[in-house]
Amino acid sequence: MNNIPAISNEEFRQRVEKTALLMAEEKLDLLLAFSTESEPANVRYYSDYWPSFETAAVLIAPGKNPALLIGPESLTYASGRSKIERIIRLMDFRESSQPNYPDSKLPSWRDIFAEFPARRIGIAGWHMFPQAIYANLVEAAPGAEIVNADAVVRQLMIRKSPAELDCLRAAAKISEQGLRAILSEIKPGLTEVEVAAIGTNAMLRGGAEATGYPVWCCSGSNSNQAISRPTHRKIGTGEIVHVSIGAKVSGYSASIGRPIILGHCPADLQDFIETGCAAENLTISLMLSGAKAADVTRQVHGFIRSRGFGDAILYGPAHGCGQMECEYPFVEANTPLVFEKDMTFMVDIFLAQNSRGFRFEDGVIVGDDVAEELSGYRREFIVID
Amino acid sequence: MNNIPAISNEEFRQRVEKTALLMAEEKLDLLLAFSTESEPANVRYYSDYWPSFETAAVLIAPGKNPALLIGPESLTYASGRSKIERIIRLMDFRESSQPNYPDSKLPSWRDIFAEFPARRIGIAGWHMFPQAIYANLVEAAPGAEIVNADAVVRQLMIRKSPAELDCLRAAAKISEQGLRAILSEIKPGLTEVEVAAIGTNAMLRGGAEATGYPVWCCSGSNSNQAISRPTHRKIGTGEIVHVSIGAKVSGYSASIGRPIILGHCPADLQDFIETGCAAENLTISLMLSGAKAADVTRQVHGFIRSRGFGDAILYGPAHGCGQMECEYPFVEANTPLVFEKDMTFMVDIFLAQNSRGFRFEDGVIVGDDVAEELSGYRREFIVID
Repeated sequence: MNNIPAISNEEFRQRVEKTALLMAEEKLDLLLAFSTESEPANVRYYSDYWPSFETAAVLIAPGKNPALLIGPESLTYASGRSKIERIIRLMDFRESSQPNYPDSKLPSWRDIFAEFPARRIGIAGWHMFPQAIYANLVEAAPGAEIVNADAVVRQLMIRKSPAELDCLRAAAKISEQGLRAILSEIKPGLTEVEVAAIGTNAMLRGGAEATGYPVWCCSGSNSNQAISRPTHRKIGTGEIVHVSIGAKVSGYSASIGRPIILGHCPADLQDFIETGCAAENLTISLMLSGAKAADVTRQVHGFIRSRGFGDAILYGPAHGCGQMECEYPFVEANTPLVFEKDMTFMVDIFLAQNSRGFRFEDGVIVGDDVAEELSGYRREFIVID
Repeated sequence: MNNIPAISNEEFRQRVEKTALLMAEEKLDLLLAFSTESEPANVRYYSDYWPSFETAAVLIAPGKNPALLIGPESLTYASGRSKIERIIRLMDFRESSQPNYPDSKLPSWRDIFAEFPARRIGIAGWHMFPQAIYANLVEAAPGAEIVNADAVVRQLMIRKSPAELDCLRAAAKISEQGLRAILSEIKPGLTEVEVAAIGTNAMLRGGAEATGYPVWCCSGSNSNQAISRPTHRKIGTGEIVHVSIGAKVSGYSASIGRPIILGHCPADLQDFIETGCAAENLTISLMLSGAKAADVTRQVHGFIRSRGFGDAILYGPAHGCGQMECEYPFVEANTPLVFEKDMTFMVDIFLAQNSRGFRFEDGVIVGDDVAEELSGYRREFIVID
């Protein structure tokens, strides 16, 4: 890929500004948007920085310049990436091996609160914010109220900008390249890890900065795994092999899921897998502005039940996508969301019965009349003789 | 690799048993060993399960069978991997997109504590244990004391068993294969990500289950990054390109770091990089039973200072390795540790001055007379014409 799309410095600046306005409505003096290596979305959304080994947070205080809070070892890495100029190193964001860095003199949370006084502190990434850091906040800002501020950040993240959509489109195109490489090289006797290697290599060579998640290849008795990792199991003929593969481009992650059968397809699988493919197409056709997430779920799950595979359903037919391949919100039977244009979702039909399962997955951009499909290559029951 | 070493079911069972004995000394009724996708060590140590998207914990209560606590979507994945038979799904370990799974009826922490009553609860993974889950524990087990139990788990993890050493040896051998592939294909004009792809692909095709961390390639102005990720920057001649590359085998992660220069080497880099290589060799020679970590640090850092590069030091000359490429303890000037046979470390010399830096890294097993080097391939200043 020659022209890799990215988010402009101006858009990063606007994200901080918009957040400061929303914080005023919530009477928040301070926001800490927290991230880890495997959950980078909050920090990367504001700063483009993606922590590795260490953790990080972005500090936003209305009327003041924001700061990126990182661990002791990442200063040059963060300086090379961060769209937020001010970078502060804190021991609380060090890596899990917990080095002491005996010669370094880093500021404390008290120093932070001296500069950014706060009576009401919001935390984004609430469900993963460490208790150990939380306790340090409580001690350094006695009497301050600390609240879950995920909703503040989510209302910005949920609708994508033109640049974000371009990143997702590019990520999906590169994911298709990965799928093509797998389909051209897959054969009985390769291990699941080797299949994952083919796709990973093709995406990294094709312009991805990373994979959105480790590529999965689930074969035979592993095919009923909705979440997985590839193993050294050798793939065989006449069994389901499903791959979930996704590239990350400038922080945005796509995903494609396809079931594949090598050799002859057992007759009893045909109807099962075709039902999944039809459910995927049905869901995509329903991802329109004004549609209710709960209605879409009922319609898709109703269709799957009508085909006799109701017990094979594990979760709702779609979930948000953006920086994380799977981000808030999930589309489920009790989701209050009404779809709006430029929201983005992974339509994700995973079905498993007994020891056999598979996933069809493709990204969509919600549209007024028709959803834009981010990927569609070989959205079918793929049998390779 | 034909015979991939692994940890036996019996060894997993013994780890739980030994932990239960240590818990009695600490008067712990219950241990929760917590993990995330990017920090899998605690959970994998006891169960071989590696969470993905979701988080997880292993519950150990002396006199009772242990349980693996997972999120709602991972049951088939966990069942296929876990060495702990009992698996319990809890909403608190769901993924960050926070689906509701409206049809599922999962137990609560009150149900857990009804079966495993506890007055004193230890948490391993203390620094990353989420405040949100912690608050739920406090509510479900009122009056119980909750304490940091990292030290309990670490005293088991720090000395490696023969099987663990074999996993690390295999991981290092496969990491060397990755380095060989990079050295045979690297050329000016490749991007850092493309160099990382070469190494990643070679390791996954060579028997790794995954990389131990995303392969780094830091070139030119990025070379001063101790922690990093590869970018789309094209590597050039006459600049430092350093790679950090490591395979994961059956949960155990190795790492190799090497600086490479394409074309002619600028004269002023020769002494800088050779000092790093000499510091790496010096450290390895000192990793002997009975040696004090603080003394080793002083000796190695003293050597680097004596060569005029004291200001290029960022951290201590080594850190623990095992499941995490970087695990407790760090070897620093104030580390109280005395080395013992079969402890394992990554000797990790990272030096950066101004905009230029590099890393030499190799794993070692502490020995009585000589440390066993896990890797050594091209531990030199590599210039490729």
